[in-house]
Amino acid sequence: MSEGPVFDQAFREQLATLFRWRRDVRRFRPDPVPEQTLDRLLRTACLAPSVGLSEPWRFVRVDGPPRRAAIRSEFERCNQAAQSALPDPAAARYAALKLAGLDQAPCHLALFADPDPVQGGGLGRRTMPDTTAYSAAMALHTLWLAARAEGIGLGWVSILRPAEVARILDVPPCWQFVAYACIGWPERPDDVPELERAGWARRDPGPPSVLRR
Amino acid sequence: MSEGPVFDQAFREQLATLFRWRRDVRRFRPDPVPEQTLDRLLRTACLAPSVGLSEPWRFVRVDGPPRRAAIRSEFERCNQAAQSALPDPAAARYAALKLAGLDQAPCHLALFADPDPVQGGGLGRRTMPDTTAYSAAMALHTLWLAARAEGIGLGWVSILRPAEVARILDVPPCWQFVAYACIGWPERPDDVPELERAGWARRDPGPPSVLRR
Repeated sequence: MSEGPVFDQAFREQLATLFRWRRDVRRFRPDPVPEQTLDRLLRTACLAPSVGLSEPWRFVRVDGPPRRAAIRSEFERCNQAAQSALPDPAAARYAALKLAGLDQAPCHLALFADPDPVQGGGLGRRTMPDTTAYSAAMALHTLWLAARAEGIGLGWVSILRPAEVARILDVPPCWQFVAYACIGWPERPDDVPELERAGWARRDPGPPSVLRR
Repeated sequence: MSEGPVFDQAFREQLATLFRWRRDVRRFRPDPVPEQTLDRLLRTACLAPSVGLSEPWRFVRVDGPPRRAAIRSEFERCNQAAQSALPDPAAARYAALKLAGLDQAPCHLALFADPDPVQGGGLGRRTMPDTTAYSAAMALHTLWLAARAEGIGLGWVSILRPAEVARILDVPPCWQFVAYACIGWPERPDDVPELERAGWARRDPGPPSVLRR
């Protein structure tokens, strides 16, 4: 067995740059993402950790215009409800935000988790069944980083009702909806989160919150 | 605003190597991980995506011997229960697996999510409250990759009952337990998952499962 690869300081610095420049993108150029690029990114996503090696991630490419329109309507409905639930000055600020790039992004990818996959024999999730969804979230994050390294952006849309997304996309009834991703080339790269640029919220500037026990 | 960094082919290939050589480590050397390294990894973890920029990850460093012993007992109890629930040939195979490095790993880190953080004003999680836990899972994955790039391994322990872990670690009652991580130098690097080397399960060798809609 080999001793494995050594990652040098130059790589680690570029990796840190990648983490800093990964963004939740909502403003896309319309240029298509080549199919072979998407295939490669999806294969890379499957290198994520998974509970008990169960690889529970399930991907859905959403290309059909009627389904895209239905997802768009569902987003609008949920976004309007979220806005209406806010008190007045916050509601106006919320209304000014662009929270999804569903119209522009050339690629739409929905991500589900199979809560009880055969692979892995159930190992590791008996006391923590949500670990299948956590595994799927880490697969999304893997794809996100690999995409950004190619200059491609990803936007995570969560303003959707899981049951409605599952109905629109007609997936197996047991699948758990984890995320809807818009994928494409960003209008502009940035190292500051869009919600921070828009003045909605900012990153905690302090050191991480760590309890000692 | 800058056009942002460009990640070249050499970096992307090394990133792919990092994804392939990240492992769920259960066999650690006992050498300590320097405090400044852990601090750096925790800061890097906070560059993960988070729903509505809420940064809901909450870290707990577990150093006290009584608490480590209690976590170890909790793991043994849950692991024994998982083994007992299996039919006979599988139970014997399960018993032969090493599923955690709690004894050897120099650093223990528990990860929780605050399900209702003030930061971010609740944006994006109204219809999908689990996105705070997904954000925390992505922070763990960020830390995992950054650690591996320094030659440090991480093992994800999920054979624990969340309520019991919260009780042992005496965290705020609303926090949701997401993962317990053992961190340290692996005995040996590898590009094959330990569960595959042990013959328990193997990665799906086929292309990713992608539905078209």
